[in-house]
Amino acid sequence: MSVTFAQGFSAAGVVAGISSVEGKKDLALVVNNGPLDAAAGVFTSNRFCAAPVQWSRKAVADGHIKAVILNSGGANACTGEAGYQQSVATAETVASLVGADDPSEVAVCSTGLIGELLPLDNVLSGAKAAFGALAATPEAGADASHAIMTTDTKPKTVALTGSNGWKIGGMVKGSGMIAPQLATMLCVITTDAVVSAGQMQAALATATEHSFNRIDVDGCMSTNDTVLLLASGASGVEPDKDEFNKLVREACASLARQIIGDGEGASHDIRITVTGATSEDAALACGRAVAASNLLKCAISGNDPNWGRIVSSLGTVPPEVAPYDSDKVTVDVNGVRICENGGAGRDRSEVDMTPREVHIDIDLNTGSDAQATVWTDDLTHEYVHINADYES
Amino acid sequence: MSVTFAQGFSAAGVVAGISSVEGKKDLALVVNNGPLDAAAGVFTSNRFCAAPVQWSRKAVADGHIKAVILNSGGANACTGEAGYQQSVATAETVASLVGADDPSEVAVCSTGLIGELLPLDNVLSGAKAAFGALAATPEAGADASHAIMTTDTKPKTVALTGSNGWKIGGMVKGSGMIAPQLATMLCVITTDAVVSAGQMQAALATATEHSFNRIDVDGCMSTNDTVLLLASGASGVEPDKDEFNKLVREACASLARQIIGDGEGASHDIRITVTGATSEDAALACGRAVAASNLLKCAISGNDPNWGRIVSSLGTVPPEVAPYDSDKVTVDVNGVRICENGGAGRDRSEVDMTPREVHIDIDLNTGSDAQATVWTDDLTHEYVHINADYES
Repeated sequence: MSVTFAQGFSAAGVVAGISSVEGKKDLALVVNNGPLDAAAGVFTSNRFCAAPVQWSRKAVADGHIKAVILNSGGANACTGEAGYQQSVATAETVASLVGADDPSEVAVCSTGLIGELLPLDNVLSGAKAAFGALAATPEAGADASHAIMTTDTKPKTVALTGSNGWKIGGMVKGSGMIAPQLATMLCVITTDAVVSAGQMQAALATATEHSFNRIDVDGCMSTNDTVLLLASGASGVEPDKDEFNKLVREACASLARQIIGDGEGASHDIRITVTGATSEDAALACGRAVAASNLLKCAISGNDPNWGRIVSSLGTVPPEVAPYDSDKVTVDVNGVRICENGGAGRDRSEVDMTPREVHIDIDLNTGSDAQATVWTDDLTHEYVHINADYES
Repeated sequence: MSVTFAQGFSAAGVVAGISSVEGKKDLALVVNNGPLDAAAGVFTSNRFCAAPVQWSRKAVADGHIKAVILNSGGANACTGEAGYQQSVATAETVASLVGADDPSEVAVCSTGLIGELLPLDNVLSGAKAAFGALAATPEAGADASHAIMTTDTKPKTVALTGSNGWKIGGMVKGSGMIAPQLATMLCVITTDAVVSAGQMQAALATATEHSFNRIDVDGCMSTNDTVLLLASGASGVEPDKDEFNKLVREACASLARQIIGDGEGASHDIRITVTGATSEDAALACGRAVAASNLLKCAISGNDPNWGRIVSSLGTVPPEVAPYDSDKVTVDVNGVRICENGGAGRDRSEVDMTPREVHIDIDLNTGSDAQATVWTDDLTHEYVHINADYES
């Protein structure tokens, strides 16, 4: 389904010879056939942001995008002016293919090795091949979602339907270099709703804050993270604003959850919920501190619900950020309260650690009821293997 | 050498039956025989700080400590009032053994499992055995440095001599759960200089800031970190203040470097120096961001001098914390400039990654010349193995 689930979009994924993996689909094209061409985007805050991010941030600023071209096999990051000109040339070629008035109607996304220029001839000939293969079919959407994968082991897509039949679909790639700001790599979400770019930007920013910014595979922020939301208006339906916001948020949440489910080398998906906080920000700070603990993540990979490593991480959050009394904190792992009043509770041998999904529920018991949930993965031998051997 | 290198100190390390490892020395005693009993201390800022930390922080506040008892095999952290009373009882027993007027002249340190009470009978009988074994010999100092080890593969000690023959020695344990605030676990430094507690506290705080607070094995802060500095005055030498500060700093730097050299599972010790920064704080923030990157640490374990992972970590430091222009940054690894002007420099195949020590030199080229150095380890299969299987 992916990006072709909503009406008004066609897509393709082709082998362009950019990736070092022989025969891998490595170039995707998504075209908005209208009648609208409204767009919104959220990008990495990394100061070494890649050339395509620099280009696309400017391109989406006016709220109009006609097409998105995405490649795996090279990030085009830290490539200076020459890299930026590659992104410009790519946008120009796609603009002329799809009949856009200006290259700035084309967004460009890249993922892969940092620090090397792309094989531009392959990108441009791939763009032409992708244009020739464009289709509005589920298969074409699936091809695109495959073409953006790097260390991902499976494509990640979403498809949701709103009242009166308007639709929203999307695809994302991401497996490692996933940190809370902005844990995505590349994401394209499409909708056939009739919405304004301003409404889309607000919805996307909020949805990102509650999804991609609340997952953490390895605490490492990418140079290329991009989330785009495109609207064709092809359904003719102008959705209720709350429903639109809700479905954008659900789409992002689903894709973020799939990233965690495919985290590099992960054997457990860990959901950390902090309740009883004085504010959502306080709960979030606590959740993120726990999610960032390598020691806890190793323990979970060894099926050890090590609450000492949970509270010692919690204890690093400054009191001014998250007020709480360490003597009142409780921790449940998979429903068993193994830490009570900041000390030992039920025996950890009671916790069933066999499910892939691990639920860590921390109650700060401040008397207030603010809460937040973050997701992370465990840290395994396989993560080290992937990242000691993968050249990126 | 260790804590008995300086005159006026005796020590012991004995098997007390606290550790789960049969026959492992697990209890150390260090006694200051005077004539002075001046002391200073720095402790973890973790909000779930252990009972012995709560006790020792108060005990050292008046600047006087006669003896320190340290155990491995149990952290006595997150153990509530019962745990605190164990620390009190331990201090009382040691105070009566060494003839101290008050239990508050005894500092207590524990390391090991979080969340379980200590076997108090073993601790108290071990204290008596250690008292019986006290000696001012190098062997006794070595025994003490062995007794505090947990996942450490070797004892870590230091011995330095100042002008006119005053001496400073010390021991530390620490291998995992090492973060920049406060990366230590347990450390006792002794000197026979004639110094005041106030001068010692100032020297220790500065030295800690430049040593234990600038190393990072896994970004995880412990509940039990304690650094103590004891002065006997037995040399009769009142050292020059600058020389005293310098030797305290050298002692801490040596011990911190030894922790990195014995980081859990590490195959490379990584020195990260950031130069050309607008301030030391800015340089430090950049160094710490790079040191915290799991992706970089995996790459180094795979002998890959992956500069993309260096600059992408550098790019996460907010501009208000560390102003720099990403287009001007250079990165040398082991002397080879593989990143120039924020992009690719010499080929990374030119970098010799076979030495254990890896030097990453980052020049922000802001026109100012502030700098800072931090140390970290690489992230290996063995780290995951140790922390997935070790129960702590």
